[in-house]
Amino acid sequence: MPSSDEFTGWVGMDAKSVEGNLVKTTFNPKVFTDDDIDIKITHCGMCASDLHTLRSGWGPTAFPVVVGHEIIGIVTRKGKNVTQFEIGDRVGVGAQCASCLRDDCYECTHDNEPYCTESTFTYNSTFPGTDDVSYGGYALEGRYPASFAFKIPDALSSEVAAPMMCGGITVYSPLKRNGAGPGKTVGIVGIGGLGHFGILFAKALGSEKVYAISRSKAKEADVIAMGAEGIIATQEPDWTKGLSRKFDLIVSTANNSDMPLGDYLSILKPGGRFVQVGLPEEPIPQLGFFPLVLMNVSLLGSLLGSRSEIAEMLEVSAAKGIKSWVDTYPMEEVNEVLKLMDAGKAKYRFVLCN
Amino acid sequence: MPSSDEFTGWVGMDAKSVEGNLVKTTFNPKVFTDDDIDIKITHCGMCASDLHTLRSGWGPTAFPVVVGHEIIGIVTRKGKNVTQFEIGDRVGVGAQCASCLRDDCYECTHDNEPYCTESTFTYNSTFPGTDDVSYGGYALEGRYPASFAFKIPDALSSEVAAPMMCGGITVYSPLKRNGAGPGKTVGIVGIGGLGHFGILFAKALGSEKVYAISRSKAKEADVIAMGAEGIIATQEPDWTKGLSRKFDLIVSTANNSDMPLGDYLSILKPGGRFVQVGLPEEPIPQLGFFPLVLMNVSLLGSLLGSRSEIAEMLEVSAAKGIKSWVDTYPMEEVNEVLKLMDAGKAKYRFVLCN
Repeated sequence: MPSSDEFTGWVGMDAKSVEGNLVKTTFNPKVFTDDDIDIKITHCGMCASDLHTLRSGWGPTAFPVVVGHEIIGIVTRKGKNVTQFEIGDRVGVGAQCASCLRDDCYECTHDNEPYCTESTFTYNSTFPGTDDVSYGGYALEGRYPASFAFKIPDALSSEVAAPMMCGGITVYSPLKRNGAGPGKTVGIVGIGGLGHFGILFAKALGSEKVYAISRSKAKEADVIAMGAEGIIATQEPDWTKGLSRKFDLIVSTANNSDMPLGDYLSILKPGGRFVQVGLPEEPIPQLGFFPLVLMNVSLLGSLLGSRSEIAEMLEVSAAKGIKSWVDTYPMEEVNEVLKLMDAGKAKYRFVLCN
Repeated sequence: MPSSDEFTGWVGMDAKSVEGNLVKTTFNPKVFTDDDIDIKITHCGMCASDLHTLRSGWGPTAFPVVVGHEIIGIVTRKGKNVTQFEIGDRVGVGAQCASCLRDDCYECTHDNEPYCTESTFTYNSTFPGTDDVSYGGYALEGRYPASFAFKIPDALSSEVAAPMMCGGITVYSPLKRNGAGPGKTVGIVGIGGLGHFGILFAKALGSEKVYAISRSKAKEADVIAMGAEGIIATQEPDWTKGLSRKFDLIVSTANNSDMPLGDYLSILKPGGRFVQVGLPEEPIPQLGFFPLVLMNVSLLGSLLGSRSEIAEMLEVSAAKGIKSWVDTYPMEEVNEVLKLMDAGKAKYRFVLCN
């Protein structure tokens, strides 16, 4: 049973809503508990997940849905157990808004909350042990457990911080966990919202060389401005030539499975890792066992990042002056912006503002 | 140009040789250098690789070939640079018999020789910078660089040590590198020659629980005698039930790709690893990105092991009294034993003896 409180948001009613048919209306958020906060949403980044979900691309979506999980807002109410925030604090909420946090949960006690069996996504999910649906940030207000909200450092503007809450952490975590740093050569596949953070954070972590890997060189000037050595274009003939054993780590943000996966594995060093963070709706391309065995390379995936990694990413970003590349739009125009996003026009993240 | 020396072995002349048609005849080994040893071969284990190669299953084999890379023998001659062995020493040679070993090779200077670009296999390969072909252990004599030969501890009999040289190290290395040890739950897929070593070594490394994973429970008594908790039978309906998040590590010795790979990944803990060491001739089964991303699991491969790991495995085996499960046959009967092996009759390794 949700609360009888009424929040206002841009609601997707069916799989056609992805075409720019969100409806501005009210919805009933979860029941307010002593552990929750309410926030007045000021900014929300637009993530590819929003589109996948609106079109039921990852399986049937439970409509009505309010998407958006790169949320920045101001705390307007807090439960009595909430000690880490004050009314008026500026906080961020990402793609995960709850997990069990019990002492007997291996994942929750080992900085690995995204893989808790009770992990709750910020939209299109239900809170554990309840029927309460989670609603995202394409809205004027939001209600979330305070344990998955993060204070935003003063040095980060809200439009810079918003897309870090999902897009940023999704690449920061696998870069950190898989050794991006001094002496390492890192490749970032796909130069969209996630990919641009991949370059920014791989450099911020001290990687020796970072390369963008994309179909064409169209974004070369951009990726160099972000800190990359350059761009490797996979549509060029023999594109892997000279790249054998070049990369320690490749993080793939590709959002569809039409990728030369075997080629990507072939440019890893022995023991190198290919980490998929984009979630294509289609299966992994056909692959032989030989590239894995003969070169000891790993193919793995990664989902979001832990709470401690989110806090660390925000601190690192503030300390190093990391700037997300964003275009901001009034949230009132969300239906027009959805169309731009689906057409691949984001350079590199759209942020909706109230 | 090979040497004019003549060694005697059981030679495969074409892809039909796998059916029991090896020919006992002479062959010309590599030119003897100051870094080489000659050995009188006393034992050679039979590895699935021998059959793959004899039937050209991994691509065209360069016939004539002498297979066998689980070799034990007595040093009968040594080059003047060879200081680590004396004539009469008992040594083992595995599936790799050379690499560049140069100071500027990252792999050779980081205990990772199997992935050196000049890695040379013990048969069906040529020594770097020469036309000299490598010949394996189905023979009376062998010639190998001393740097890839290993003194066998007195506590290990030759028939116990022989199959460790490839079958043993192929599972020892990935178990060690991927954390098998105290507190860990390890699965071993495929209970053949490699798989039985998987159980023995996973236990020897201190893993808390080790399970065999096989189609049926036919080998249950055997795997328990090897130290496993029991066997998980994949041909039983709903076989993954109750196994969610059970395994830290699964090492797959499966030799064909008709495997429920998605199911294997589904029984790993978050962050768990599935390491393929068998080399099926067919591609990896179709798989989605979701299991990798949502559970942060890794799919990787591993080839043999480093020289330091081989030496360590032999010491651990001697110290802990590890006994390979072998049946020995006179090497003169190799053609009959090949047929038994191809029919899956090995329990768990055949060793040929001169």
